[in-house]
Amino acid sequence: MNDRGFFISLEGIDGSGKTTLKESIIRELNLNNSVVGIREPGGTVVSEQIRDLVLDARNSGIMGKTEALLYAAARSQVVEEVIRPALNRGQIVIADRYLDSTIAYQGYGRGLDLQFLFDLNHLCTGGLYPDLTLYLDIDPLEAYRRRQGELPDRLEQEGLEFQARVRAGYLVLAASEPRIRQLDATRSQRQIHDEALRLISTCLLSRNRD
Amino acid sequence: MNDRGFFISLEGIDGSGKTTLKESIIRELNLNNSVVGIREPGGTVVSEQIRDLVLDARNSGIMGKTEALLYAAARSQVVEEVIRPALNRGQIVIADRYLDSTIAYQGYGRGLDLQFLFDLNHLCTGGLYPDLTLYLDIDPLEAYRRRQGELPDRLEQEGLEFQARVRAGYLVLAASEPRIRQLDATRSQRQIHDEALRLISTCLLSRNRD
Repeated sequence: MNDRGFFISLEGIDGSGKTTLKESIIRELNLNNSVVGIREPGGTVVSEQIRDLVLDARNSGIMGKTEALLYAAARSQVVEEVIRPALNRGQIVIADRYLDSTIAYQGYGRGLDLQFLFDLNHLCTGGLYPDLTLYLDIDPLEAYRRRQGELPDRLEQEGLEFQARVRAGYLVLAASEPRIRQLDATRSQRQIHDEALRLISTCLLSRNRD
Repeated sequence: MNDRGFFISLEGIDGSGKTTLKESIIRELNLNNSVVGIREPGGTVVSEQIRDLVLDARNSGIMGKTEALLYAAARSQVVEEVIRPALNRGQIVIADRYLDSTIAYQGYGRGLDLQFLFDLNHLCTGGLYPDLTLYLDIDPLEAYRRRQGELPDRLEQEGLEFQARVRAGYLVLAASEPRIRQLDATRSQRQIHDEALRLISTCLLSRNRD
């Protein structure tokens, strides 16, 4: 591994298995504490305060754009305070959600203007994009059944329709961004883990050849 | 006055007389509650919460870009919740500070990247710029003497050097943006008020001729 770090983000709807995959990758790769795992939003003292404010402010008429800007503020802090310094030390950073979540959830899910969100992502990250993004694709109803073992009620059905819009957004992103690799998240944890490691290795090797 | 509102912002360093001018304009123009005054940052429940967070977070390693994004979130909320609806009702909005403060204070004062701040201003306002900006120009030392009646000590001198960089930023903006009109803030309140009203009337008249 060269002396510059490597930045991986994991994306997918709730229940797609991001956290499980993150932990199994960290177990496999974490020689000499070379891997830093983060989870968005949060990851710094300031970002956690912002997260609390967003959750609290939802009760007092927060607008969609304001919410997006608050999440961008939290992301900017975690980029400057955690991600960039770790990459500069040559570490591997694995983020459970990063900028594609903004597009999928706030763009496709909530209907905010996509160009606004792309521009905001670029601003708050200072142009720091992942080297590789692993998108765990699964049908929301299937993800629900795997967790709950039963059919959703009416309220849960509305949640599933939102998740279906989010998934559609992810599929558009995965089809248009070469750094995003799509994985079938209905397979076994072992199969997903193995494919993820193959993709990570291939990406690292091709970069080292450059 | 036509059925669209009119948006005025007041800018200048601390002690330049923005609040006094805002109040005298409101007293003169406020027939039938047609004027809405706001003050940044703040002006909505959510924006006040963000203001508190910024002041609190300064103690826990907040980065300059994060701070700028938080202020942008507060501004986005006040634009959507207060300014745009008032303009749509045909009211006059007078803002004590708006987007030029971001450029002058965080750009010229603190040294953040200017293009980042211009882009962020455009995003958080949705392109809603004032019809007219009145910039109250005064030398920081002169503003200090008028308030305190004495010479600054060493710590205050550092504050004055910061204010001098902010003033330099305002002067660059005023020279490059036609919507910004510069007023000599060392004159009497009466003279400043009269010139401000002349500029407002001229701007309203020229718009009505379009």
